Amino acid sequence: MSAATSRRRFLAGSAGAAAWVGALGWTLAPGAAQAHEGGRTPPDRSGHGGGINGATFRAGQVVDHAANGFHPSELLRDFDYGRTSQLSDGRTLREWDVVARDQEIEVAPGARFPAWTFNGRIPGPTLRCRAGDRLRVRFRNASEHPHTMHFHGIHPADMDGVPMIGRGVISPGEEFAYEFDAEPFGLHLYHCHVGPLAEHIARGMYGTFIIDPPGGRPAADELVLVQHGYNTTFDGEGNQLYAVNGIPFHYAHEPIRVRRGELVRIYLVNVLEYDPINSFHLHGNFFEYYPTGTRLEPADFTDTVVQGQGQRGICEVRFPHPGRYMFHAHKTEFAELGWMGYFEVTE
Amino acid sequence: MSAATSRRRFLAGSAGAAAWVGALGWTLAPGAAQAHEGGRTPPDRSGHGGGINGATFRAGQVVDHAANGFHPSELLRDFDYGRTSQLSDGRTLREWDVVARDQEIEVAPGARFPAWTFNGRIPGPTLRCRAGDRLRVRFRNASEHPHTMHFHGIHPADMDGVPMIGRGVISPGEEFAYEFDAEPFGLHLYHCHVGPLAEHIARGMYGTFIIDPPGGRPAADELVLVQHGYNTTFDGEGNQLYAVNGIPFHYAHEPIRVRRGELVRIYLVNVLEYDPINSFHLHGNFFEYYPTGTRLEPADFTDTVVQGQGQRGICEVRFPHPGRYMFHAHKTEFAELGWMGYFEVTE
Amino acid sequence: MSAATSRRRFLAGSAGAAAWVGALGWTLAPGAAQAHEGGRTPPDRSGHGGGINGATFRAGQVVDHAANGFHPSELLRDFDYGRTSQLSDGRTLREWDVVARDQEIEVAPGARFPAWTFNGRIPGPTLRCRAGDRLRVRFRNASEHPHTMHFHGIHPADMDGVPMIGRGVISPGEEFAYEFDAEPFGLHLYHCHVGPLAEHIARGMYGTFIIDPPGGRPAADELVLVQHGYNTTFDGEGNQLYAVNGIPFHYAHEPIRVRRGELVRIYLVNVLEYDPINSFHLHGNFFEYYPTGTRLEPADFTDTVVQGQGQRGICEVRFPHPGRYMFHAHKTEFAELGWMGYFEVTE
Repeated sequence: MSAATSRRRFLAGSAGAAAWVGALGWTLAPGAAQAHEGGRTPPDRSGHGGGINGATFRAGQVVDHAANGFHPSELLRDFDYGRTSQLSDGRTLREWDVVARDQEIEVAPGARFPAWTFNGRIPGPTLRCRAGDRLRVRFRNASEHPHTMHFHGIHPADMDGVPMIGRGVISPGEEFAYEFDAEPFGLHLYHCHVGPLAEHIARGMYGTFIIDPPGGRPAADELVLVQHGYNTTFDGEGNQLYAVNGIPFHYAHEPIRVRRGELVRIYLVNVLEYDPINSFHLHGNFFEYYPTGTRLEPADFTDTVVQGQGQRGICEVRFPHPGRYMFHAHKTEFAELGWMGYFEVTE
Repeated sequence: MSAATSRRRFLAGSAGAAAWVGALGWTLAPGAAQAHEGGRTPPDRSGHGGGINGATFRAGQVVDHAANGFHPSELLRDFDYGRTSQLSDGRTLREWDVVARDQEIEVAPGARFPAWTFNGRIPGPTLRCRAGDRLRVRFRNASEHPHTMHFHGIHPADMDGVPMIGRGVISPGEEFAYEFDAEPFGLHLYHCHVGPLAEHIARGMYGTFIIDPPGGRPAADELVLVQHGYNTTFDGEGNQLYAVNGIPFHYAHEPIRVRRGELVRIYLVNVLEYDPINSFHLHGNFFEYYPTGTRLEPADFTDTVVQGQGQRGICEVRFPHPGRYMFHAHKTEFAELGWMGYFEVTE
Repeated sequence: MSAATSRRRFLAGSAGAAAWVGALGWTLAPGAAQAHEGGRTPPDRSGHGGGINGATFRAGQVVDHAANGFHPSELLRDFDYGRTSQLSDGRTLREWDVVARDQEIEVAPGARFPAWTFNGRIPGPTLRCRAGDRLRVRFRNASEHPHTMHFHGIHPADMDGVPMIGRGVISPGEEFAYEFDAEPFGLHLYHCHVGPLAEHIARGMYGTFIIDPPGGRPAADELVLVQHGYNTTFDGEGNQLYAVNGIPFHYAHEPIRVRRGELVRIYLVNVLEYDPINSFHLHGNFFEYYPTGTRLEPADFTDTVVQGQGQRGICEVRFPHPGRYMFHAHKTEFAELGWMGYFEVTE
């Protein structure tokens, strides 16, 4: 059974199938339905659009964010700077507590996913600091599975969070404090590095790690977008759902609100498992792109970037016009399975 | 059935199978044939090479370009500047008429594909303008399916050509004029944005959109290469044929003629559906690469670039030696299924 | 049968399966085993880590490098400068002899692969010269299959090593001298260009081709890492094993030794067949990245790069801390099937 066939069967058979009829049809216009083979029922024959006006979403059905314990609209601008104190050498010590848990998440209306999380959310907390800070991350494993926190960045081997080096794997019930200096400045990430590696990542164990440059960056409305997916069948052959910040299609239902003319800075991270690449396309606009965020001059001015797993970059953009602008993977399949949303630009 | 198996069956069973025996074998030398399993019959046991000397192409069989209504060798340098007039503020207004149609295309000798086209060709017309121009694209939908024109570039939301925003989907028989300013300068694209999005793109609804910088670019022999494919089985799981500018292997049969020492500027666009990336490799030479064409300084000097769908860039190259130089995807499978050609360099 | 299923069956059924239990489990911690479905038996329930302490590798089982005729730890810094002499115009003539052979390689303990090689190794010899040198590569085909040497670089068409141009395919028992000037400086590659192209590459016919800039590069500990894979089932649908420099997991067993603080220059080449991209992630550190090596200023400062087939780049890094640092594809599947290793940093 191919990955694509597997996807269709999942969608047809899952408890959330009714909801997904609407979701899948988000760009499906009535006349197009006949042209589309396969099991996807057209959601709306009454007029232009269809899509999020489809059967289920039209009835207002979304996931239960409160039960999930996190809300993608709140994650967007939720930067966790930790607790700070001053070291004897004058440097800043920044401390966080991070807990791994086994946690069921409603990833689509009626479809539950047995996730493994950092601090009860997907993606995990956005840890943010400044270059040169001393960092201490107290990691406690309250999951029934062994885990680690592996940070991208420069640090000693025994703080790398991989098996068999330093403390290695953190067993259930144990804890460990990762401690290292914040370098280099840029946009990084962290994720569990226990095998089977693909599964430990794909279950939800990843988050954003931002090291601000010494002088900071220009003031902006800052957002985090972590690109990922859900392999709901656990067959290791691909994802049935795609998302940014935890819930497929979330920003289609609740567009990201930004101001016309204001500088918007997007911290864009890709941790998608199984697929070789992911991509981000912004409609009606262009952004300056800073790969890995490690330089203060942009490398590209574009509307579409491709990222492999572990790649990330900063997008800076101003919206000159008001209105609603789509963003999504320019890998069409990912967009149609959840990786799309809107910016709502207001005066 | 896997995508690769599906490909082999299509090729074995299609009306164009005889032709494809030759095409598939374009680099197949006689001695290599025994080493290759599967249903691909070696085309030529009589000497070195085989390939386009294979059974069918040796007999001169190619697609009927006249019946198709377009010719890839002509598309190459066919820039559509539209009709121009002057606005009261002194700016240039540039207008085009674009019509969507359902149209059968012979994509390989004997193999017909039910395409959806812009202005009767695949890719659609190369719309070209200068930064700051006012653009008006009168789009008429003469297809039996709903469509839009979604442009990459900076423009207001209601001109974005997506469902449910502005005029949204353009139904069969209807028309709409997209109107916006040309910005930013660079190499862009347009495509239909009606769902199922993958199918609307894969059926042939895409084209190149060039915005020249205010001061233009240095004089050059300019070419457009749009990379795409055909999912002839409509299973949404992959392409059976790969091409640039409409017809697989076309530039293997009719090499692109360029002059030794002359600056050649290639506008390279990737709209390939289903596959995660595409790539372009030039033999025996290197090019300066300008990603998205939005800067006047090149970012790379190489012979191989990778593009995700929606990515594009400008390649500038001079050929120091005469002769025949291959170009193709350095994704081998794509090359062997049609995405290859030659430059013929003459004095 | 999907590619992933095919992989599992190969690993379960091959003569090397026992060995691979250990290899596959390199990051597999005991508690994680239960969470992992499929045929991969956890290798080590006795404590943290498992992995290369697993059943087979713990017993010291590795491939027979002497029988293979090459050793990945030796390939790493093995630069072949050829034989040099001076031409009448004062330039350097650099000459190499390269022989293609059919050769069985033990690619995993007990698993043999019918390879086609250049000079008896996978990857082939690292040919190294300086910009402006005259190069002469005497290629002799001692294989039972037709082959060529196709170089990336700037050269006349008849030296391009492709079928039907110049000498074209070199038949078994024949030989040919490729001769051209070394340009442009950078990191390049060569590979066979006979069809079926994917198979001729995937069987092992590739190598690194370095053209040093006129003034050289700063002194460094220089290494070559060629990323590739083995399609051991010859189904053309994907790889069952992934590696750098010939043998999966080799640098996990024999880490690459480097000195703390010393400049390390990695010539990183991707020739992986069948998969759309490959990637390289370095743990605990960042590197300056020079795409294609054609400029003396780096383009990126990162810890993760993606390369399509035929892409390559130079990574420059200093390790500030001693210890063991993992490197691997950040395509998790590739890492778990062999594309991982360690740097061992000593004072």
